[in-house]
Amino acid sequence: MTKADNRYEESFSIMARSMLPNQIRRLTPLLARADIISFAAGAPSPETFPFEELAEISARVIREQGKIALQYGPTRGQSRLLEVIAAYMTSRGIETGPSDIVVTSGSQQGLDLVARVLLDPGDIVLVELPSYVGGMIAIHNSRAEMRGVKQDHGGVVIADLRAKLNALRSEGRRAKCVYTIPNFQNPSGVTLAAERRRELVELADEYDFLIIEDDPYAEIYFDESASRLSPLAALSPSRVIYLSSFSKVLAPGLRMAWLRAPKPIADTIELAKEGADLSSSQLDQAIVFEAMASGLIQRRLPAIREFYSVRRRAMLDGLTANAPGSSRWTEPLGGFFVLLTLAEGLDTTELLPSILEKGVAYVPGQSFYCDGAGANTMRLAFSKETPEKIAEGVGIMCQALRERSATA
Amino acid sequence: MTKADNRYEESFSIMARSMLPNQIRRLTPLLARADIISFAAGAPSPETFPFEELAEISARVIREQGKIALQYGPTRGQSRLLEVIAAYMTSRGIETGPSDIVVTSGSQQGLDLVARVLLDPGDIVLVELPSYVGGMIAIHNSRAEMRGVKQDHGGVVIADLRAKLNALRSEGRRAKCVYTIPNFQNPSGVTLAAERRRELVELADEYDFLIIEDDPYAEIYFDESASRLSPLAALSPSRVIYLSSFSKVLAPGLRMAWLRAPKPIADTIELAKEGADLSSSQLDQAIVFEAMASGLIQRRLPAIREFYSVRRRAMLDGLTANAPGSSRWTEPLGGFFVLLTLAEGLDTTELLPSILEKGVAYVPGQSFYCDGAGANTMRLAFSKETPEKIAEGVGIMCQALRERSATA
Repeated sequence: MTKADNRYEESFSIMARSMLPNQIRRLTPLLARADIISFAAGAPSPETFPFEELAEISARVIREQGKIALQYGPTRGQSRLLEVIAAYMTSRGIETGPSDIVVTSGSQQGLDLVARVLLDPGDIVLVELPSYVGGMIAIHNSRAEMRGVKQDHGGVVIADLRAKLNALRSEGRRAKCVYTIPNFQNPSGVTLAAERRRELVELADEYDFLIIEDDPYAEIYFDESASRLSPLAALSPSRVIYLSSFSKVLAPGLRMAWLRAPKPIADTIELAKEGADLSSSQLDQAIVFEAMASGLIQRRLPAIREFYSVRRRAMLDGLTANAPGSSRWTEPLGGFFVLLTLAEGLDTTELLPSILEKGVAYVPGQSFYCDGAGANTMRLAFSKETPEKIAEGVGIMCQALRERSATA
Repeated sequence: MTKADNRYEESFSIMARSMLPNQIRRLTPLLARADIISFAAGAPSPETFPFEELAEISARVIREQGKIALQYGPTRGQSRLLEVIAAYMTSRGIETGPSDIVVTSGSQQGLDLVARVLLDPGDIVLVELPSYVGGMIAIHNSRAEMRGVKQDHGGVVIADLRAKLNALRSEGRRAKCVYTIPNFQNPSGVTLAAERRRELVELADEYDFLIIEDDPYAEIYFDESASRLSPLAALSPSRVIYLSSFSKVLAPGLRMAWLRAPKPIADTIELAKEGADLSSSQLDQAIVFEAMASGLIQRRLPAIREFYSVRRRAMLDGLTANAPGSSRWTEPLGGFFVLLTLAEGLDTTELLPSILEKGVAYVPGQSFYCDGAGANTMRLAFSKETPEKIAEGVGIMCQALRERSATA
C-alpha cells in the first residue's frame, strides 16, 4: 500500500491496510521510455484493434440506440448481450442461458465479485504456482488464505493438488475454491492437459470445492489441438465459475468481460455487482453486442491468432538461439506469455535494472508465486513487440543473462 | 438476496448472505409497461443527452486516439481527464490537484470503494433519514452499522447529529463517517443550509469523523442561491471525501464519475480500484474528457437546469392543487426528487399496487430510512416524464391518495 501519512492511518479498514500493489502495473511507468523493448506488459497489441469498425459502431449505437447506450441499464448486462454470450458459451460446449451470465467491467471485476461473494477471511483458495497477480489480489482482498499447487508443462500437477487437499483435510480444514487459468496461463503459458481437466473436476466433487476458471485467452490458440480442450465448465457446470473477456479478442479499453456461474451464484454476483457499480458501461456493452452479433469478432480471430503466433515463434526462436544453457522456458500453445526459468540462485528482480538499462523489460516472476518462490523466473510477453523487436530484445536480454550466468 | 438453491448456500461469504437488493432497481421490471407514468426511476431524461455530439466524439476518439481509448490505462484515470476534473473542482472552491482524484465507474463504485477502504464490520456510519439506497448498500456490504440522523427542510438537523454523536460517545463508541448528500438530496430533495455546512465540518473536527459528501446533482440547481453554497469539501478538504458524477450532466450509461479525497485516502482508493476493476472504461474516459475540454458539458448546463426546473414546477403545482390535505412535501432547489409524506398510518408500500394499477409509479420511502421509518413517505422523481404527464400522473395519484385518506 502507498504509505499514507499517519493522520489517516487509523481511518483505514483492515482490507485497506493489507492491500498489496499489483507489481506488474507498478512497472508501467518504467516502460514509458520510448526505446524500451517491452516483454513486460501483457496487453494486446493495438495492431489487433479494429479501429475503423469500432468507430463506426460506436457512432451508430449512440445515434440509433442512444436511449439504451447512454442510459442506466440492468446490472447483469443488456439482455441481448447476455443472449449472444450465452449462445457463444453453448457453442463452446458449456450449456448456458442468459440468466447464468453476468457482464463485468473486465475480468478483474469478475474475479473481485467472485471473491467477495464466496470468500470470508481465513477461507482457503488453492492457486497455481505461478498464478495471475490480479486474481490473487482479488482473493487477498477478501482476506482469504492462498496455498500454491505445482504446475508443470501440463498445468496443475494433480498429485500435488491431491496432496494439498489431503494436507488441509488432516488439519481439519478444506479448500473452498481452486483458482485456475487452464489455457495458455498467465504467467506460465502452460495449458492444462485434457486428462488433468477430468481429474480436476473429479477432485472438486470428491473434496467439495468450487473451481474459478479464468479463461481470457481461450480464443488465442496457435494449435488446433488446444482449441479442442474442454473448458472445465463444460465438464462440471455446477462446480465451475467461468470467466472470460473481450479484452484480448477485441479491445481491453472497453473493459468488457463476463462470467458464467451456476444460476444461484450468478444471481448473488449480480446483487454484489449492483452494490459495486450498478452496471458496466452501457455504451461499451452496446458496442460489444454489435461486434459479436455482426460476426466482427469471430471473423477477425484467425488473423489475430496468426498475429500472435508469429510473435511467439520469434520469441521461442530467440530463446533457443540465445538463452543461457542453464535456463528453460515454456512453449505456449496460445496466449501472450512465456515463462523463462534461470539457474537456481539467480534473481530476476535483482537483474531487472541492468537489463532495463540495456533497453529490455520483463516482469520478475516472484510476484506470481503465492509462496514467495520463483525468484529465478521471469514472465516474457510476446504480445506487444514486432517479431523483429522480439528477436532483438531476446538477443539483448539473453546476452546479459549469459554474462550474469557466467559470473554467478 | 435472491433465494439461492440450498446447494450453494454454504458456499457464500458472510457479505453475500447479508446483501440486500436495491428496492428501487427491483421496481424497474414493473415499469416496463409503456403506458405507466413513472415517478419511480431517478434516471435523467434522455432528452438531455447530446446524442449527435457524443456519436461524433466517440467515433473521433476511437479513430484519433484509439491506442488510448481502446487499450488498458491507468487505474486512477487518464491523466488529462484527472487534470480537467481537478480544474473543475478548484473552480468550485475545492483546491484540487490531479493526484487527489480517482475516476470511478459511476459514483456507486466510488461509494463502494470508500466503504471498502474505510469500514470494518461494526464500524458506525451516520446517515441521513432518509438517505440514498445505493450509498447505504455500499455501507451495508462492508458490514458497518448505520445510525440515522434527522433531516428537515434545511437538511441534517445539527442538534440531532450532536445528540447521536454524544450517545455514541457515552456508549464508548464513535462514528467513523457521516454520509451526506448536501444538495437536492436523493430521496428527499432537501438542501443542507449554509450555516449547517459550517456546523457539520466543525463537528467533524470535534468528534473526529470523516464526511462522505455525495454530490451528483450539484450542477442541476434551479435557484442561483443554491449554486453558491459551499461544498463541504471546500470547507474542510482534509475531512471530506467528495463524490460526483457525469451521469446527470452528460449520460449515465457511460458510468463516469469521480471522487476527490485527501491524497493518502485517494491513493488507497486507487489501490482498491486496481483490485476491483483495474480501471474504468478507457473509451468512456476519452469521451468524457472531450466533452469536458470542449466545453460541451458546461455549455449545456443552463438548458438542462431549465429542462428539469419546468418539470419540478409541474410536480409542485400538481401537488399543491391535488395532494390530500394531510400530506406535505419538499420543495427542491435542484435535482430530480420530491419527497411526499402522507398522514401517519398510511403505508406507501401497501398503496403501490393499486396506484400502479391506475398507471402511476413511485418509490415507497421506507427503504431510504435506515431505521425502518418512513412507511408513509414516497419518493417522486420528476426527471423522466414530460410536464404534461407529470401533471396527469400527480392528478391520478393524488386522487387515489385522497380516496384512501378518506377511508383511512
